Amino acid sequence: MSLLSPPERVDIVEVAPRDGFQSIRDPLPTDEKIRCIQRLIDAGITRMEIGSFVSPRAIPQMADTDQLVAAFADRAAMRFSALVPNLRGAELALAKGVRELVFVVSVSESHNQGNVRRSVAESLEDLARIVALLKQEGNACLRLDLGTSFDCPYEGTIAWHQVDDVLTRARDLCGDLHLEVALCDTTGRATPYQVANHFSRLVERHAGPRLKWAFHGHDTYGMGVANALFAIHHGATTLDAACAGLGGCPFAPGATGNTATEDLVYALNGGDVDTGIDLARLLEAADAIAALPGGQTASHLRQVPRGRVTSPP
Amino acid sequence: MSLLSPPERVDIVEVAPRDGFQSIRDPLPTDEKIRCIQRLIDAGITRMEIGSFVSPRAIPQMADTDQLVAAFADRAAMRFSALVPNLRGAELALAKGVRELVFVVSVSESHNQGNVRRSVAESLEDLARIVALLKQEGNACLRLDLGTSFDCPYEGTIAWHQVDDVLTRARDLCGDLHLEVALCDTTGRATPYQVANHFSRLVERHAGPRLKWAFHGHDTYGMGVANALFAIHHGATTLDAACAGLGGCPFAPGATGNTATEDLVYALNGGDVDTGIDLARLLEAADAIAALPGGQTASHLRQVPRGRVTSPP
Repeated sequence: MSLLSPPERVDIVEVAPRDGFQSIRDPLPTDEKIRCIQRLIDAGITRMEIGSFVSPRAIPQMADTDQLVAAFADRAAMRFSALVPNLRGAELALAKGVRELVFVVSVSESHNQGNVRRSVAESLEDLARIVALLKQEGNACLRLDLGTSFDCPYEGTIAWHQVDDVLTRARDLCGDLHLEVALCDTTGRATPYQVANHFSRLVERHAGPRLKWAFHGHDTYGMGVANALFAIHHGATTLDAACAGLGGCPFAPGATGNTATEDLVYALNGGDVDTGIDLARLLEAADAIAALPGGQTASHLRQVPRGRVTSPP
Repeated sequence: MSLLSPPERVDIVEVAPRDGFQSIRDPLPTDEKIRCIQRLIDAGITRMEIGSFVSPRAIPQMADTDQLVAAFADRAAMRFSALVPNLRGAELALAKGVRELVFVVSVSESHNQGNVRRSVAESLEDLARIVALLKQEGNACLRLDLGTSFDCPYEGTIAWHQVDDVLTRARDLCGDLHLEVALCDTTGRATPYQVANHFSRLVERHAGPRLKWAFHGHDTYGMGVANALFAIHHGATTLDAACAGLGGCPFAPGATGNTATEDLVYALNGGDVDTGIDLARLLEAADAIAALPGGQTASHLRQVPRGRVTSPP
């Protein structure tokens, strides 16, 4: 029989409202964001990175994250998260009612310095303070995004033991906190066999009931779906994805957004994997997102005739 | 350790000269084709579907296949094949010195009717005659392309046992002939789990020393690399691919060519899989192919900066 039996369920975290909206140079109006988020919810999305609590001077596109959190505060079935690069962001997010914090630290020093303007050690000091905050709060939880887990734009290839080093230090700070760890292919250059190797090594060393695994990937090199499935077959249970593949960078030709949610859902539907997402309605959301002014999208499913998007079983 | 260890070697069959050049409405000049083929050889391609022996009225783009075969007749290290839809094509191909025939028959009746204007049974009658020819020749061999092995544009999903039925009938005609069987995802709609299921079922039923397995896929739905790798991990040893992703159909918006050779090589390089292909030179060939007038291409690797195409190990 088949070596790769599909899993029963995969959790999809929709990141277009964070990673995608952030990539659009002129900040979108808040009500436009709200309409897109509602469409994503209508399509069956239940986990979403809704924005980030960062300096509005650094990233003005995320300045209204608190308003988005407030607008959807009554959706008990939804699991919203927000990215926080430091203690200040975590405090703000918790004060505004976010129950799931995404703390980001890059495995490579130079990328962490470029991304959050501090060393990995300094990021981890903030993580310790955030963990203390979360333990006080009691009902909040933590996603740890390990940036440049496979490749760094400045340092090149990242070996699994470099990821292991940062993860080990981070876990020592987390104690008995439940944790979802995302290996992030920040540049899109990871290959399926590298993804398999990193996950199998790290899951072997860090297996435990309080730890779950996620993969955050891009389709820039055409590896998006393959990398995601290789992650799933080596321990990941959650995939990040951006509806319509919204993302990229206006200053980096060829850079694309996260792997399109609809492409991943199509692949998973073919294995009868439960994602809770209705592909037809997701494509309606993708059309709305693709129509946003200034957005760059990269989706395969949006290019094919709508009558042909049901996966063969 | 990792569930999916990379294989030592994968054979790539470059099909741009057939599937790709055929998709360009105005036939390319023969010398232009020769230049592209030479670039592909320079990049390390050793297997190539160089054209097809079909009616020049039906497919004028392939009318010069005999000239291409003659132009490269002295390349002893190259394994050229040509597609033949019927006995007449096989006779012509063998007369012109082709040593590897690609006989195509679709699993679905309606697609076979549309593609080669005959029933599956009629195609198989020709296959019997071609097998007799090949046995006379002695030193020629056969690739069997099973079109619509996963999905048919007219009949929808194709179950593995439908493929099994046609393959069983074909094998009964082949006797002890060595055979490479390609499951062809003609529409690009196959998903990785469907590919895994079909290959695992069929390999289990048809395993034998005289049978090798190939996968012929498209990236239309973004499944190109994932489908290819799932095929490799379920018995395939050969992948068809088109440099620059040349292909598609001028009359079908959204249709794309075969998965780009460079995207597959990038994925395989990440597992240190030997393909014999030099990715940098392949990208030079891809640029030349993408510059052909009237060609539609779909390649991820061609979109990224050239200094960044070495796979992280």
